Amino acid sequence: MKNGHAHRLLVSSAFGQHALPPNSKLSSIRSRRTPRPSSFPLPALRHLPTLQASKTLHPTTPVVTADHAAGFASTDRFHVMDFHHVEFWCADAASAAGRFSFALGVPLAAHSDLTTGNTAHASHLLRSRSGPLAFLFTAPYAAQHGGADDDDTASSSSVLPSFSADAARRFAADHGLAVRAVAVCVSDAAEAFRASVAAGARPAFAPAELGHGFVFAEVELYGDVVLRFVSYPDDTDDVAFLPGFANVASSEDQSECPPDYGLSRFDHIVGGVPDLDPAAAYIAGFTGFHEFDRVNAKEVGTLNGLVLANSSEKVLLTLLEPVHGTKRRRSQIQTFLDHHGGPGVQHLAMISDDLIGTLREIRARSSMGGFELLPPPPPSYYDGVRRLAGDVLSEAQIRECQELGVRVDRAADNNGGVVLQTFTKAAGDRPTLLLELMQRIGCVEIDDNGKEYQRSGCGGFAKDNVIHLVKSIEDYDKTLDAPTTRVA
Amino acid sequence: MKNGHAHRLLVSSAFGQHALPPNSKLSSIRSRRTPRPSSFPLPALRHLPTLQASKTLHPTTPVVTADHAAGFASTDRFHVMDFHHVEFWCADAASAAGRFSFALGVPLAAHSDLTTGNTAHASHLLRSRSGPLAFLFTAPYAAQHGGADDDDTASSSSVLPSFSADAARRFAADHGLAVRAVAVCVSDAAEAFRASVAAGARPAFAPAELGHGFVFAEVELYGDVVLRFVSYPDDTDDVAFLPGFANVASSEDQSECPPDYGLSRFDHIVGGVPDLDPAAAYIAGFTGFHEFDRVNAKEVGTLNGLVLANSSEKVLLTLLEPVHGTKRRRSQIQTFLDHHGGPGVQHLAMISDDLIGTLREIRARSSMGGFELLPPPPPSYYDGVRRLAGDVLSEAQIRECQELGVRVDRAADNNGGVVLQTFTKAAGDRPTLLLELMQRIGCVEIDDNGKEYQRSGCGGFAKDNVIHLVKSIEDYDKTLDAPTTRVA
Repeated sequence: MKNGHAHRLLVSSAFGQHALPPNSKLSSIRSRRTPRPSSFPLPALRHLPTLQASKTLHPTTPVVTADHAAGFASTDRFHVMDFHHVEFWCADAASAAGRFSFALGVPLAAHSDLTTGNTAHASHLLRSRSGPLAFLFTAPYAAQHGGADDDDTASSSSVLPSFSADAARRFAADHGLAVRAVAVCVSDAAEAFRASVAAGARPAFAPAELGHGFVFAEVELYGDVVLRFVSYPDDTDDVAFLPGFANVASSEDQSECPPDYGLSRFDHIVGGVPDLDPAAAYIAGFTGFHEFDRVNAKEVGTLNGLVLANSSEKVLLTLLEPVHGTKRRRSQIQTFLDHHGGPGVQHLAMISDDLIGTLREIRARSSMGGFELLPPPPPSYYDGVRRLAGDVLSEAQIRECQELGVRVDRAADNNGGVVLQTFTKAAGDRPTLLLELMQRIGCVEIDDNGKEYQRSGCGGFAKDNVIHLVKSIEDYDKTLDAPTTRVA
Repeated sequence: MKNGHAHRLLVSSAFGQHALPPNSKLSSIRSRRTPRPSSFPLPALRHLPTLQASKTLHPTTPVVTADHAAGFASTDRFHVMDFHHVEFWCADAASAAGRFSFALGVPLAAHSDLTTGNTAHASHLLRSRSGPLAFLFTAPYAAQHGGADDDDTASSSSVLPSFSADAARRFAADHGLAVRAVAVCVSDAAEAFRASVAAGARPAFAPAELGHGFVFAEVELYGDVVLRFVSYPDDTDDVAFLPGFANVASSEDQSECPPDYGLSRFDHIVGGVPDLDPAAAYIAGFTGFHEFDRVNAKEVGTLNGLVLANSSEKVLLTLLEPVHGTKRRRSQIQTFLDHHGGPGVQHLAMISDDLIGTLREIRARSSMGGFELLPPPPPSYYDGVRRLAGDVLSEAQIRECQELGVRVDRAADNNGGVVLQTFTKAAGDRPTLLLELMQRIGCVEIDDNGKEYQRSGCGGFAKDNVIHLVKSIEDYDKTLDAPTTRVA
């Protein structure tokens, strides 16, 4: 177990130098951290740093009308700051929350359930100590004991006003382990809802006040997934996550403080959809998000992809569609759609500032019921990594990447940074939801106050990584079609 | 992490002496292990040891007609050897299996899923290396991809012939984290089914051959729970659990072998029912099991209980009913029935031969998403333990029991042995399923071959423990009715 992970010294690894001297005793790869408020929830309406990036986007971005080439003038229809949380709808939230907590090293932080007077549902929040990463797991109570939609007492005790016990039961039965809501912090959830719906969003839940100044609303995103808007005032330190949640009692014994493996935030959240263009037009239409990057089947073989970003590029929403028949491989996105039962969240990408250290912790739990990592690519792959990023990663670090199966890519633009990435195998029973673990290195810039920060999305979409990872996932999926000889 | 737990030296702790010298460096409490076949599955039709117990049962046992007072002449209607496994029906089996594996230290051992050609359901087996303890977790795949009852291809690929995707979805939605099947090893599953149904059992699934000589059948037990009969020939080493399952690939690196915290077998499995007498008459009627012990509301306050046992007393099936109005406490069994949604498995009791060591491992995972133990009773309780069992437990061991909240009881019959017990808080979201962790000390006897073994059920029902534990669980349940002041 490793405690206090977040408090260890962070070593600068500005782009263009070795991240660390090759002989450094501290051989892990660490990126300079983006300055981040130390308290959570994030204060509303905080000032976004003035961005000084020179990255040139595609000259035409078909899903937005504004021209982004000249310094990211915001086309956002409402002010979005960051991801706030993702919520899973489960049949038993304790099981999924417990597994994610120990397997990913994200501590149980708050809960809303019978002990807090909530007779409608049990909700468990995991929250990183390394950053704002937050997972919420929710399951309905028994129908005869309050977890029914026709029970006014129970419904009124729910602290998530959009919660529906019947819908949650159907969702868990239809999709297995799956994300119901992608929540973003906005400056005004009621205004975000109004602007979204005015621009074509299908409403899912009209704005509701949760108390303490928190406002909550939802619009449809894709399939059974909603985009949830959450806003709140600056001074909310007395609220555990959302009103109605209680902090998990912390042990006085610091040695019992649950470990944090260093995952700090969502980098991007990816939807699998049958048709990219209408899904992208719908989301770009009501959010105003701009096109951050694209991949197509000529590059990747079995999918087309598009990344939409808010103006600060802290919220990246990726969409992937399957492409059939271009190669003799089944599209991983088609496998997702078949087993998930339609569109949904296909993977969650999370950032660590010490990916190697984080992956070692995750791998140590794989055989105990944790998540398994994809197998490494062939050794020859890392000869390419030496040529591509030998000026950023030491030989020792490249060997660690090889040991843990980390893919390494570098943006074509020399200021674009280096991206380290790998995936887990399917997180639940079905070949649907994957978890991506990644680190972005480089792109350190200076804000108006003279402080260094890492530009969001540094290194971009990392197309070569995507090609390698898609191939690896599809190779793994092939094993799902062929019974092994081990079976008696 | 503790590896190779099962291989550590077991120290004799025959009843009537200190289990260990008080100054022993190895201060954990270890009971003499019951001799047990080293291979699993257990061979069918193995000879039961001739029992030499002198324990006197209740002179009248209302639910069976045979007289057991003279040496346990078997009244069993079919030959039952032991528990085989329990199966949970889930919405996502990987989440529940993963959590149980790391939280209880029972390794993932086998699976049947898409990778083995099973398109109907994903099943994960946890199996102890310390004994035959086995948990099976099963969830249906997506309806549109085979996990539907009207899909002949998918149904035929199920390796559990009674599996129904629709029923499993309803079960998980109705009950949350809950046991669907209590499986026992019998000498002939078809004969057990025939004899049970002839004696009044409601059939659930008629006998089916699984291949390799395995036979499988089910009758209703209580609520939505079935009693599953499994039989198989002696030579089944090439079968992983049941035909159609594959062993989990074991790492060549022994250091990655998942830890086993020492839980070795189910001691007893407990059903919560609204009315004890008809449930007991039904089960005793078709099994022929005899009455092992009873408690009533005059002793415990809020429940009546009955333990039924097979002739060897390795399979103990307990039934508990709520009793209202005798005290100003809500019956824990009524809480179970309300939140579970009717009758079901209320707790699973598991044996460790080193309970203190096992509890330390379990407690170390509590804050990481594992299971929490009930809080300890007041210190004065352990003054009573010193008087009761100071000749069996050293002062150091009693202090360890106090630290971990272990309750200690001793059968009134001096040959009856000492029972150490505690419970987890609710295993899932709802105040329903509990896990009991226990150790039985004493009752060492000699079999026909001159080998020592521990008599099954040594120490009996441990009524004083039950009284203390029921009180503790009900005190905890009270917190579920009162919102805490921590909630904003």
